[in-house]
Order: sequence, then structure tokens, then C-alpha cells
Amino acid sequence: MCHHPSHAKLISKYLSSILALNPRVKTHANLHSTASKKNEKKHWKRNPERSCDSCVNLENNFDDIKHTTLSERGALREALRCLKCADAPCQKSCPTNLDIKSFITSISNKNYYGAAKAILSDNPLGLTCGMVCPTSDLCVGGCNLYASEEGPINIGGLQQFATEVFSKMGIPQIRNPELPPAHEMPESFHTRIALIGCGPASISCASFLARLGYDNLTIFEKQKYIGGLSTAEIPQFRLPYEVVQFEIDLMKDLGVKKVCSQSDRLQSKYLNEWMHTTILYKGMYSVDITLNMEVAKDEKCEFLPFLSPHEVIMKDGRVVGLRFCRTEQQDDGTWIVDEEQIVHLKADFIISAFGSMLNDPEVKAALEPVKLNGWGTPEVNSETMQSSEPWVFAGGDIAGLANTTVESVNDGKQASWHIHKYIQSLHGNTVSTTPKLPLFHCAIDTVDISVEMCGIKFPNPFGLASAPPTTSAAMIRRAFEQGWGFALTKTFGLDKDLVTNVSPRIVRGTTSGHIFGPGQGSFLNIELISEKTAAYWCKSVAELKADFPKNIIIASIMCGYNQADWTELANMAEDSKADALELNLSCPHGMGERGMGLACGQDPELVRNICRWVRKATTIPFFAKLTPNVTNIVDIARAAYEGGADGVTATNTVSGLMALKADATPWPGIGRGARTTYGGVSGNAIRPIALRAVSAIAKALPGFPILATGGIDSAESGLQFLHAGASVLQVCSAVQNQDFTVIEDYCLGLKALLYLKSIEELHDWDGQSPPTIRHQKGKPVPRVDELIGKSLPSFGPYLKTKTEVLARYKKSLKDAMSNVITDTSDSGVPQRNVPKKPIPNVKDVIARALKHIGAYQELDNTEQVQALIDPEMCVNCGKCYMTCNDSGYQAIKFDPETHLPVIMDSCTGCTLCLSVCPIIDCIKMVTRTTPYVPKRGLPVNPVC
Amino acid sequence: MCHHPSHAKLISKYLSSILALNPRVKTHANLHSTASKKNEKKHWKRNPERSCDSCVNLENNFDDIKHTTLSERGALREALRCLKCADAPCQKSCPTNLDIKSFITSISNKNYYGAAKAILSDNPLGLTCGMVCPTSDLCVGGCNLYASEEGPINIGGLQQFATEVFSKMGIPQIRNPELPPAHEMPESFHTRIALIGCGPASISCASFLARLGYDNLTIFEKQKYIGGLSTAEIPQFRLPYEVVQFEIDLMKDLGVKKVCSQSDRLQSKYLNEWMHTTILYKGMYSVDITLNMEVAKDEKCEFLPFLSPHEVIMKDGRVVGLRFCRTEQQDDGTWIVDEEQIVHLKADFIISAFGSMLNDPEVKAALEPVKLNGWGTPEVNSETMQSSEPWVFAGGDIAGLANTTVESVNDGKQASWHIHKYIQSLHGNTVSTTPKLPLFHCAIDTVDISVEMCGIKFPNPFGLASAPPTTSAAMIRRAFEQGWGFALTKTFGLDKDLVTNVSPRIVRGTTSGHIFGPGQGSFLNIELISEKTAAYWCKSVAELKADFPKNIIIASIMCGYNQADWTELANMAEDSKADALELNLSCPHGMGERGMGLACGQDPELVRNICRWVRKATTIPFFAKLTPNVTNIVDIARAAYEGGADGVTATNTVSGLMALKADATPWPGIGRGARTTYGGVSGNAIRPIALRAVSAIAKALPGFPILATGGIDSAESGLQFLHAGASVLQVCSAVQNQDFTVIEDYCLGLKALLYLKSIEELHDWDGQSPPTIRHQKGKPVPRVDELIGKSLPSFGPYLKTKTEVLARYKKSLKDAMSNVITDTSDSGVPQRNVPKKPIPNVKDVIARALKHIGAYQELDNTEQVQALIDPEMCVNCGKCYMTCNDSGYQAIKFDPETHLPVIMDSCTGCTLCLSVCPIIDCIKMVTRTTPYVPKRGLPVNPVC
Repeated sequence: MCHHPSHAKLISKYLSSILALNPRVKTHANLHSTASKKNEKKHWKRNPERSCDSCVNLENNFDDIKHTTLSERGALREALRCLKCADAPCQKSCPTNLDIKSFITSISNKNYYGAAKAILSDNPLGLTCGMVCPTSDLCVGGCNLYASEEGPINIGGLQQFATEVFSKMGIPQIRNPELPPAHEMPESFHTRIALIGCGPASISCASFLARLGYDNLTIFEKQKYIGGLSTAEIPQFRLPYEVVQFEIDLMKDLGVKKVCSQSDRLQSKYLNEWMHTTILYKGMYSVDITLNMEVAKDEKCEFLPFLSPHEVIMKDGRVVGLRFCRTEQQDDGTWIVDEEQIVHLKADFIISAFGSMLNDPEVKAALEPVKLNGWGTPEVNSETMQSSEPWVFAGGDIAGLANTTVESVNDGKQASWHIHKYIQSLHGNTVSTTPKLPLFHCAIDTVDISVEMCGIKFPNPFGLASAPPTTSAAMIRRAFEQGWGFALTKTFGLDKDLVTNVSPRIVRGTTSGHIFGPGQGSFLNIELISEKTAAYWCKSVAELKADFPKNIIIASIMCGYNQADWTELANMAEDSKADALELNLSCPHGMGERGMGLACGQDPELVRNICRWVRKATTIPFFAKLTPNVTNIVDIARAAYEGGADGVTATNTVSGLMALKADATPWPGIGRGARTTYGGVSGNAIRPIALRAVSAIAKALPGFPILATGGIDSAESGLQFLHAGASVLQVCSAVQNQDFTVIEDYCLGLKALLYLKSIEELHDWDGQSPPTIRHQKGKPVPRVDELIGKSLPSFGPYLKTKTEVLARYKKSLKDAMSNVITDTSDSGVPQRNVPKKPIPNVKDVIARALKHIGAYQELDNTEQVQALIDPEMCVNCGKCYMTCNDSGYQAIKFDPETHLPVIMDSCTGCTLCLSVCPIIDCIKMVTRTTPYVPKRGLPVNPVC
Repeated sequence: MCHHPSHAKLISKYLSSILALNPRVKTHANLHSTASKKNEKKHWKRNPERSCDSCVNLENNFDDIKHTTLSERGALREALRCLKCADAPCQKSCPTNLDIKSFITSISNKNYYGAAKAILSDNPLGLTCGMVCPTSDLCVGGCNLYASEEGPINIGGLQQFATEVFSKMGIPQIRNPELPPAHEMPESFHTRIALIGCGPASISCASFLARLGYDNLTIFEKQKYIGGLSTAEIPQFRLPYEVVQFEIDLMKDLGVKKVCSQSDRLQSKYLNEWMHTTILYKGMYSVDITLNMEVAKDEKCEFLPFLSPHEVIMKDGRVVGLRFCRTEQQDDGTWIVDEEQIVHLKADFIISAFGSMLNDPEVKAALEPVKLNGWGTPEVNSETMQSSEPWVFAGGDIAGLANTTVESVNDGKQASWHIHKYIQSLHGNTVSTTPKLPLFHCAIDTVDISVEMCGIKFPNPFGLASAPPTTSAAMIRRAFEQGWGFALTKTFGLDKDLVTNVSPRIVRGTTSGHIFGPGQGSFLNIELISEKTAAYWCKSVAELKADFPKNIIIASIMCGYNQADWTELANMAEDSKADALELNLSCPHGMGERGMGLACGQDPELVRNICRWVRKATTIPFFAKLTPNVTNIVDIARAAYEGGADGVTATNTVSGLMALKADATPWPGIGRGARTTYGGVSGNAIRPIALRAVSAIAKALPGFPILATGGIDSAESGLQFLHAGASVLQVCSAVQNQDFTVIEDYCLGLKALLYLKSIEELHDWDGQSPPTIRHQKGKPVPRVDELIGKSLPSFGPYLKTKTEVLARYKKSLKDAMSNVITDTSDSGVPQRNVPKKPIPNVKDVIARALKHIGAYQELDNTEQVQALIDPEMCVNCGKCYMTCNDSGYQAIKFDPETHLPVIMDSCTGCTLCLSVCPIIDCIKMVTRTTPYVPKRGLPVNPVC
């Protein structure tokens, strides 16, 4: 033993400056005078001072200044907490009836194309509306989370996020792939249709008509710019030009023509000219100003409610003021203007901002013979949007229904169907009585995701595991109707082995913490195999195969270690015309005690023999479902392979005990004795175990088919299993968390992931996630350190300085840019990304990750990394600092004044800081430039 | 095969009414006219209409109507997302310097006493302040989450929640247990101290003085009620009497006396009488009204800013109006009153609401010779709160510093230390230069949580696992300083086996979904054993044992399957004076390939032999650390037992592959080849596996000590492991997620859990969680169905009806109650809960759950349950309905108009509905009253 002065104490002293701000357990109450605290808090304040006379004014700098904008991190977080309600009231409260819970489901599954498709299908101006909708009066107003403390979902922000990501993909809209080519369309679809005014109502109407197959659509616009009020009157910081352009480009992808003319006179001429064809008249529309009012309040504009203008006060021929009278509500609810209560304000200018109407006499004349109402606008049927002249339709503000952009969009959508109906009636055709407006389509939809395994063609790789979602044949039927590619029956056995369940038996996991509601990270169940008879299941399989010949049905069977039983059961199932069998050798509870399930599946010898028996009994493919509750799952898979199985399912649930209450009783607890048994853990919590199992089997038995299961809850996680070596994917917990319709998201998501692999321009994306821009709250931020030579945090006096620096910078940009954006009439051919290599199919991606996975000894400990923090994205929480101190290497300095962390050279690249950082990509691991020298503490074989 | 008409189709038809509202994949865009949508949304609206003339007025009904109130569910959710920042700005922005991140950490760990203790330690009026603090200007204003889309934490709501739960525990405050008994205190602590006015400043000051040991404290109050403005001027719906009473009771627990007199004259008399002793004068204080303004806005009160009252307009001797002039800010920042801009309002009454001051001449006279300032209030030193007379101190409004309740509390706190200092100086004593105000204490703090295992006395059962938090001896040293009971060294081996790590190597888990930042549900690491030498560790153990004799140090060692190596290493470790050894037979990556770690630990034979070797080599206790990656962990534990181990550690990490990116590369990926190997999954995700392992070993080997590890992140989860059979608890991931100070929360939490087991009155609590009251957003709701015979949801017209029904009911209650609450001067002896049986120690609770855990066959399938939904708590999301449809039994009806779900008799009690419901206890499982008859689908052995 050496007797140097305490080494540990020396280090401890050395580290004390690093550790100065690390938390310590309190031994006493704190003492700071009220006076000193008043000053201290100013240093740390992140929100505006209550009475701040010296705030920096917002610059009209073309930046997005919306409160609702979301980064990917923010969007994922928000999407996760959405309840995805049944018969969701948000959808009912959206004028275009947008399927909000579906697009939020897609966002939470990182399927941003899926989300955008859902949005654009019902609203061709989905991005505009995500940015300008007065959501609190629409979708958000109905959100069921109003009944919770955390409040309603930021639906507009999510809508904006998903459509913006899709816009960055640069993929054009295509016609409904189910339609015949344009030249084969009936004559009626070539009808000339004019749309007057290129605003949201016209863009919407033209988009839907084009999706229906109409190919002679022209929009006339008297302004040089397009987008109607979206462009003209919504400020750039609420709705940038690019947004409008993106949506117009999508419309033009379908061949809609656009003519921008120069004057009202020309427009009247067109109107006259076109009056003898079918005409859609789209008018002006008003924009909801609630959100712009927010901005005005931020700018310290004052709002004076309940005042009625009474008199303009003039002096020497100039305006000097305005006198108002107060409007007041009487006890009976009526409102009066009380001339005794006056308010007198000084003013140099008076700007009147009331709604506008159809005033131009030439336009009015051109509209003849359309009947106008008392307001001087066309009389319109509020259901069909048809005017007094059957070939003239109107929507938007001029039709008197729409108060908001989204309602104008809906007017156009509504009109499109009735124009279709009208045109077809002129050709003697009738259209479906239930409206059938096609969905949004792009090339992603056409990607083939079918996959063949063991000679069986799966329409897509997603199926239902043998589990609660396949409790009955009726449920499988509904699952197929929603799009599931295949289904396992719930496991059945011989009548002698029939079971009766206990209750309670399926409980929420505690693995994600005390979070209740959507997206449970795991479940534990002590449910047994099916309570139904083999006869029921065999009959059901036969019926399902007859009704869904393209869907794959795999019969899941189980019996004891007995050749006669396995033979009988396998024969019954084969006779039912099941496409394949799955041998349940892995149920972790109950059945094992009866010599079934994992009692068989944990022993390679038993697995091999059972497979041999079944191989002998049947000609159809069969798969052994493996348990992860073994020392080496590869040994079991190999036994199945040797026994003649056509593949394996990896894996069944992981045996566990989920939770004990404070009185030591378990949950689930059965009966008065509150008894339990070990159950099966499923869901995301076991995904790392399942991914390991699948990849280990795939590496050991190349080409041996694997059906993966264990935490597949999205296309993104499904692709991980394909990459790990699986051919098809079984789902259970994700359906328990939601419903069968998630299949639509999975299929679209997988199509998108495959399609994007072929777009070279997106090589720096991770699947559907674009590279993280340097941002705060999802809004891009310039590097302050490049402007003033140092980074600044976002609180107290630093925040003020930072805001001023950025405002000056943006103003300089703006001045430089002025007059650049003047004519948006035609941006030419939109820049679109086109695949330059073939789009991979499912088969092409299977097992692609295996080359990266191997023994530890194959990892190179000379290729080391270090952490790098982006101070512009840092929120100053110091989580990196704390974890580095108490679980790492004390390699982060944390500035006591600015709370900005800095990585030191002693960083060993362990990555804990990145792992706990709340902001995606605020910390990156970068290649270490100096060699890594481990600290051995004392020299090897010390001599002392 | 039978040939009946399709059975499945029949069922499908039968179920169609149930399934009407279940989600379906969309095939077409939706079509609804704008006009129809405008109506539809009204039905579903949950927030107020934008211009609602007919809203129900809020009744001043003594209900809590704060926006920030949280249910347990809401509190857990909010606490989880708190970042628990380093050097947290929230604390810096709180006038009392409350350790906010600590109390929120405790809430997220379900340790509500721990949270309340942290709160009351720095703020004896912690509950009042949680309810009335203008937090956005204080703690919340500094929240780092202002820089995130989800926004800052509801700190006030969390503070209110934790202290309210503690108040329901009914446990009195006690004196600092470190002080000698009162009669042994020095004379100076018996000094008579008077506090004038029983408001927050006095209550705070008296509480801290009593905690310091002063026992002759009297508060004089001229009103019949107590609490000062808290009671007098803050409306009941913001601050109920009970809250004030709770805090005063806690103060009285420490012996503070209170005298309520009847008049100013009496008060002056007391002042005169007491002027010759040490006196603390506490004055009035003002209450921040921001939050009350919110309520006024809800009530449609109109605020007119920037107006200066100019003239009261009278007519016939009565007030008829008021004339204001506008105040305006000039370009130079100054404000003027512009008499040209006037506002004239009608008024019947005018209420002036400016601040009040010390006006009473008798009180002023009594204050002689205290020097008053120009405002007529005492001149006060803002640091010491001392007046011109050294024995007179002042705080609160009258001292001129406090604008809020919490600042008054802080004035009292600040004064307490300086009164202490002053009194001690009179007795010739000096006090610590760093202030040392004692923390809050109650009987829970005195619970003994030490535990003996293998003859080793652990001061508490919580220690650090052999893992990143014990990377160096300096870190263990700091951990002991914070209160950890024991620590394992990071595993070390012989010099010939020295390792060098790769990087990156510790990554966040994906098991809880795409959530970044605090409370990661899992980590995966491919970190090896310590990079430091055995010599370093042995020297460090010796130093640590010398400096921390009461803390337990266990040396974690590893070598290959070689007796000489194990003997050498075990001897080295024993020589270092380690209390015990842990044999790492379970590291899942890297070491296994070198014949170490789990390569040894997966084979009972090897485990048995290694244990025998070590048993032979050492005399100190040793434990085998087991891997969960085996078919049967009990076999391995038994081998260790047979080999002579003193116990086992269960379990090491679970082998897994965490994630693959969309390009098929893994994370962590090493070097240019982005290679990886299977790593170890730790954290909450593996808790069910670890709980199973611990309980299975405990059942199989009763009395064989177990050190548990795997997802211990709180006292609550720690207690689960004790109940499952563990004696002590090892932690790693939870420290990685936060820092060493969590130990304080764990110890207090465990003390509370043990203490509460002895309080009979709380038998229906689950640990520190009180029974869920019927509530919406944490606020109790009466049963609407009892009032009007049916339940109503909380949206659209139902919401209006419901609000009206409840308002009528509350008004009737209020009328009945009027004049009942008049005198709050003394509620008598507070109702307190006292343990009636001995408080269990740790030993007493070990293995208490085992009697509930057993084979499946022992579960009783005749004791069945069914779900029961409380419609008053339902948020109408229909998650129960969807999961029952697509993963269950189609046993829930979902009303298309009210969105209220109803359970049908076909419910099988599976519990999925409860498992996915977002609201705690909205669904309960209740005993089934009719026998459960499984649906077999077709009869057993069908004849057809």
C-alpha cells in the first residue's frame, strides 16, 4: 500500500472549481434578503418584465414569429401527448374536416409524409392554414385535453411542421393513380373551367377538380402576385411567400393553368368571354386577424374595446383626433351606443379597417346575369355553392359563409364536388350520392411494399401478432379492411387444453414513468391463449381466406410436448387453408406450467422435435415463435431451423413483474388474495431485446426467414427490424395503444422511407427527419457569436442584448433585400427532387444493418469522439454538466453567469451529455483530433 | 368443416352499431359545407365562444378556481418534464430561495412529503404561496423551459399539490431533532419575543425562530381571525381558510403562542407593555393581484389602462360618473397626463383601491422611539430588517420591500436570523457567519432506515451500482457527502486485463418514445469495466473507508475463469478494507468475449466454482452480480449460494440493440464503419425484469441476501424491490438522469413510506398517494348525475348546462353555509394523525410481497372483475372504447352525442381500458357480480 498524501483529496480539490455549480443536498434553509433577491431575479428572467418600457420592438423582418411553430423535438413531444380520440371533436371542429388525429399519429410515428398527405387530402392549403388558422376557435376549441391540466394540443403548429417537412422533400403532387390517363378520360372531364381570382378558394377548388380528373382548369388573377389575400394582406411574418408558392406549385403539378392579367378591365373581359362555358366565380375572402392581434399586442399596440367611432375632430383642415362613444350591453342582452360616455383620442392619421366587398361596376356588369343580394354579392346556395346561374359557383368571402382562410378553402372544396356533379349531369352522367373526392397523391404512394417470404406474398410487411387484437375472427376481418397485410390468429389448442382467463390481466407498463394515457411504452399481460375452440378458429380461417384472398392468415397453435397432439392440430389448421402456421413455443405465463409455451421453447431439443413433428404433418410453411427468456435465442432458432421450420418469430414477450403497490400487493392482483404470477412484457420497452434477437438470428442463420415482433409501433421502428434481418413485422401493443387504422400510417411511412432512400438531395436526412437547423423553438437563429464574437444565453440582460443584435442584423438583411421580392406571379418550374436510382423494395433493405453489428473486439478504440455543444441552441439547463460530473468525467465547464456549458479536452466521448440533453442536436459527437489516453488513476504495476 | 351462413359476418353485422364510431382508414376526402361545419363545431366546443354574451357567471362559491391547480396525474406529468436544471434560475428567482428543482424531483418520484419538506424548509407559508404567488414574475419567469415550445413549468401548481398532500397526512411539525430538549437550551433561547400582527411575515419569522430553538414566542393579532391579509383580503376562492389554518397549525406545533385581541387600543397597550423586551414588529403587507385580475377577466370585468382619474361627476348629490385623462409615454420615455384626451364613464359607485399604510395615531405613538420615514413607516435596514431601535425589527409591507406574500415571508425569514444574532449577541454569544436556519422537520425525518445485511450495517439501503457514477473515487466521495449509504467501485480487474473504452458508448433509450431530456426511461451502454488500475481502486477504497467509516464500500471485481486470478484480486480488495466484494459475472458486452463477465455468469457450474474460489480466498462477505440474460436466473443464484456467496446482486443490464438509423447504421456507431456491438440496457425499462429476478430468487432461496438493481429511481420503486425480497438497492441510471442529490429524496421518501404504514387513518392511501377524489383538473366535482339524474360531458351545450347546474348547487351550499365561517381565531387543537402501531424498519418490509406471487394455476378464475367508468372524471376521449374494440371484446358503448362510454356486461375484465385511460382512477375494476362465461366461438367438439 502506498502512503502518499491522499490522491483522492487532491483531485477533489482540483475539481472544486468545476463542481462549484453542481447540486448539493441542503442542510439548512437559504437566507437572502428580499432586496437582494429582487435584483438577482432580473439576471435570470426569461419572460418579459411586467412593466417593460424599454423592450426591443419586433422588426418586420420576414421571420416566422408565431408562438405555435415547433421544432421536430417539440412536434414529437406534442404529438405524443395527443390522445388520438375516437370520433375526435377536433376534426368535427375543422371547417375542412381534416383528420387531425391521423396526421398527429403520423407525426408521433415520424411519418411526416403520412401526416402531410392526411392534411393536404382534405385541405390543399394545409400549410397556409397551419400557419394562419384561428385554431382556438376551430380544431383546438374542441380538443378533449381542455379537460386536462396540460391543456389542448397545438394543432396548428403540428400541421405547419408536417407540411413544412414535406415541402422540403420537394416531391410533386400526382393525379389519383386509380384514374385512367388523361387522354382516356371521358369528354366531360375536358370541360373548360375558369376560376376567377387566385386565392385560397380557387386554389382549393381547382386542386380538387384536378384530382377528380378535370384537365382544363384556368385561374385568372388580376394581380401580378398570386395567393389572393394570403399574399396581399397577411403579413410576411405570419405567412411567407414560399408557403403560398408551395401550395400553388402542388396545384400546378396537376396541370392547372394560371393567367395573371393586369387590370379589372381585362378581368371583366375574361369574365364576359367565359360566361358561356362553365364558370366558377371565386371571390375575395377575409383573413382571421386574431393571431395578428397577438403580434400587435407583443408590439405594445393598445386595443380599446366597446367603442363606437362618433366624430373625427379636425383642426386647420387636418385630423387631430377622434371621438368615440361607448357601446354597452343592457341587462336584457341588447347593445346600445351610449352618447353620454365618450372617449376622446388624439390622432394624426385614421385608418379604417372594415371588411371590403364587390364594388367595381365593371366586374359587377360582367357578372350579369348572376343574381346579387342586398350586399351586392351573388346569391349562393350554402350547400352547393351554386349561384342563380347553374354554371356559376361562388365561394370565399363573396359567398358570405367564410370568415377565415380555412373556410374559404372549404367553400372551394365543397364547390368542386357540386361543379363535378353539375358537369357530369350535363353529360347525362350521375355521380355517387356519397361524395368521393380523391385524396392527395404523390410518387411515394406508388411505392411497392409487398414482400415475399417462403413463397407467400404479403401485400405489405405489417401484420397483427397472435395477441389481444386477434381475439376474434371479426376483429381480423376489420383489420384486413383497414389494410393490415397479414394476421396471426390468437393461439388456439385442442379442446382438452381449453383455457379460461383470469381478470384483471393486461396492465399498463411503468417503464416510461408515471405517464397515463396515449403511447404507453409497455404493457404486461397474464392473458392465456384463445378462449375459443380450435373448431371456431379453423372455420374462421376458412371464411377469412375466402373473403380476403390477398391477405395472409397464419394459424397460431400450441399444445404439449406430444407428437399426436401437434400432428392433429397442425392438420386441422392446414385443412382450414391457413397460409402458414406459427408454433407458439413461448407464452411466458400459465401455459408453461401445463408443459406448453415457453416450457417447450426454452429447450432446443424440444423445439427441434416439435418442428420435426409439424414438418412431417404439414406441407405449408410454419414458423416457431421464440421466447426471449433464454440464455441464447440463437440456439433455439437453430434448433427450429434444424427441425425443418420455415422461419422463426422473434420474439414473444419478456417475462416480468410490472409493479407492486405500497402495501406490497401486485398489479395485476387477482381476487381477494391479490395474487399474481409473472407476466409477459410487451411494447417499446422490449424493442432493444427484440432487435438484438432478430439481428443475432439473422447473422447466425443468413436467409432464414424471421417474423419480427416486440415494440414495432411505426414504419420507422419497423424498418429497423427489416434492417436487422426480419422479413415481416407483427404488431400488438401499438394497436392496444390506439386502433387498427395505424396500419395506414405504417404503410405510407414505409413507402416514404423507401422512396426517400433514392433521393440524393436528401442524403443528410435521417429517414423522414430533415437535418436539425440551428434554432430556438423551431425558429432558425443566426449565430450570435459570428455577429458579436461571443454566444449569449436567452435570459436577463443577455436576452436583451441578443434580441437587439439579431434585430439589427435582420434589419440590415431586410434593407439589403428590399425590392427584391416584388413579382411572385410565376416562379417558373418548381424545384423538385427526382429519384436518380431505383426505389428499393422491402426485400432490398432486409438485413442491411448486419454488417455494422459484431463483436466488441471489432470496434476500433482509436477512432474516438468528443462532445461539441452548440451554444445557440442551448437552453442553459446544465443537464450535460450534471451528468458529466456525477456519472462521467467532470469535463464540462458551466459558466456561473451565462449558464453556457463548454466541453473540455478531458471529455472521453462517453455521450451521456448528448443522451440527457433536452434539445435534439444541440450536442453532437465529433471526431477527436488528439489521441485518447485513458486515466489509469495509478500507473500499471506501481513501484513505490 | 361446417357450412353455416358465415358466422363471422353475422357477428360483424351485430357489432356494427357498437363499432359505429371506431376509426376507419380514409379512402376519400371529407365533404361538409362551411355552413354545416359552423354549427357542428358548437356542439363540441370545450373553450368559451369568442364572443359569448350568455356565459354563466362564476359563483363566489369558496371553490378553488385557480388555473394552476393540479391533480396527481397532472402533477406527475408536469414534474416529469421539469429539467431539474443545474444552478436552477427558478430558485434564484424565488424570494425565499426555495429549492424548486428538488421539490419537483420529489414530486416526480411520488415523494410528496419530501417535496413538502423542501418547500416548508425555506417557506413556512409554502402552501399559501403555491396558491397566490405571482409566479410568472418570480420562479416561473426564470424557467429554462421558456426556451422550449412546451413552455415553463407550473411551479405554483406543483408547490400547492405537494403541500396539500402533506397537509392531508396530518403530521405535526417538530423541533429540529439535533437541538437539545427545550429545558436544556441556554437561557438566551427563552427570551420573550413578541410578533405583532399574525400575517405571513410574523408566521414565517416565528416559525424560523422556533426552529432555531426559541420557545417564548407570542404573536399578537388585533383581528378575531388570523392570517393577516391572507385571510382578510385574498378571496376565499384563491386562498381558503384551511390553507392559512394548516400553516398556522404547523407554527403552533412548535409552541408559538397567539393572542387575538379586540382593538387597536389593546394592540397599542401590548406594544407599550412589550417595548422593554425584544420586539419584532411585523406589519401589513400587500398581496399581488395579478392572479385575481385573471379571475376578474374570466368574469368579464373590463380593464382600462393608461387612465388617470380626473374628476368625479356628481348629479343631485349622487355620483353619476368619473372623468379620466389619458397618460401617455413620450418619445423620451417619460409619462405625462394629457388633459386633452379624456374618457368619461358612468358610475353609480366608485371604489378606490390604492395601497394602505400605517395611519392609526395610537399605534404610531406606541411605536415610539422607532424612527419613521417620510411614508410614516419605520426606517428598516434592508439586510437585517432592523429598525432604528436595535430590538425592534420590521418586515412585510411596512418595511417597504415586500410587494407580495412571498416577499413578506422572506422578510420574516431574514429577520429571524438577525433577531437570533441580536439576541445571542446580548448574551455574549456569536453565531455562525454563514446563516444556518434549520430545515422543516416532522416525525417522518426520525424514521430509522438503516439495514443490516451479512453483518454489515448500511446507514440507508441506497447505494451506487458499479457503473458510470462510480467512475472515480472522487465521485464516490462526493456521493457519500450527499448521503448515499454505500457504493460499489466501478469493476476493476488485474492489470493484464486493463481496458480502453470506445466512444460513443452510452446512449439514450428509445423505450419511452421520442422524448428528449429529463427522466429517460432507459440507457444502453457499451462501456467496459473501469479503465483504472486495481492499485488505484484499492488505494481509493482504503482512503474512502478511512474518511467515511459509516459508509459501506463494496469492491466490484472481475477476471477470467482462473482461480489464481480471482484469488489475487479478491485478496487485493480485501486488503484495501473493502466491506465486501461483488463479483461481476454479468457484464453483457466486451468482457464476455474475453471470457469474463456474463461469459462466466451464464453457466451455473462456472458461477459455483468462482464463488468457491473467492470464498476460499477471503473472509469478508461477497456477492455474485447476476446477469438477467439467462433462461433461469434462479439456477445461477442457487449456484452462487452453493459456491458460498453471501448473496447476489440482481440484476446487471439486459443485452440489447437500442436503435438503427434510417440508413441502417446503429447508434452508438463507432468510427467510420459505424460499427456496434450488443450493449447493456439499464433503467426503468428493465425494472419488470429485475423485479421478477429479485422476487424469484427470494422465493427460491429464502433469507439469501439480494442487492437489487435495475430501474430503481425513487423510494417508491426501491420499496417495490424491498417488498420483492431485496435488502439493499443499487442505483445508476437515475443518477445519470439527474445527479447525486437524488439520494436525499430517496431516503426521505422511504422514511415517509415506512411511517405512513403505521397511520391507520391513511389506510386507503397507496404509499404517499391519497385516494383520487372525483375531480376535473384536480378540482373536486360534485356528481352531476345525483343532481339532475344523468351525467353530462364537458363540452358544447352540455358544458353550459353542467356549469349552470353546478353553480346553482354551489350557490345553495353557500347560502346554507353563510355565517358559519366567521371566527377563525382558534380552531382548537389541530386534528393530527398519530401512529398507533410501531413504525416498520427496512428489515420488516423485505420480501413482504412474496406471498402474493406464485404460479398461474394458483390464480382464481372464478374471482373476476369488470370495468366501471366514472363519467364525471371522463374527458370523453374514447381511448377505452377503441382499445376494447380493436384489442378486446367490443364491450363499451360510446354515445355519439355525449361521447360518454358505458361498460356492457360483455366486459371480460381484461383491464386494457383502464391501462390506456389518461385519467387516473376514472376507470376502476370492480368485482363481477355474475359468473364469467367465456365465449368459445363454437361449442367444444361441435357436431354438425
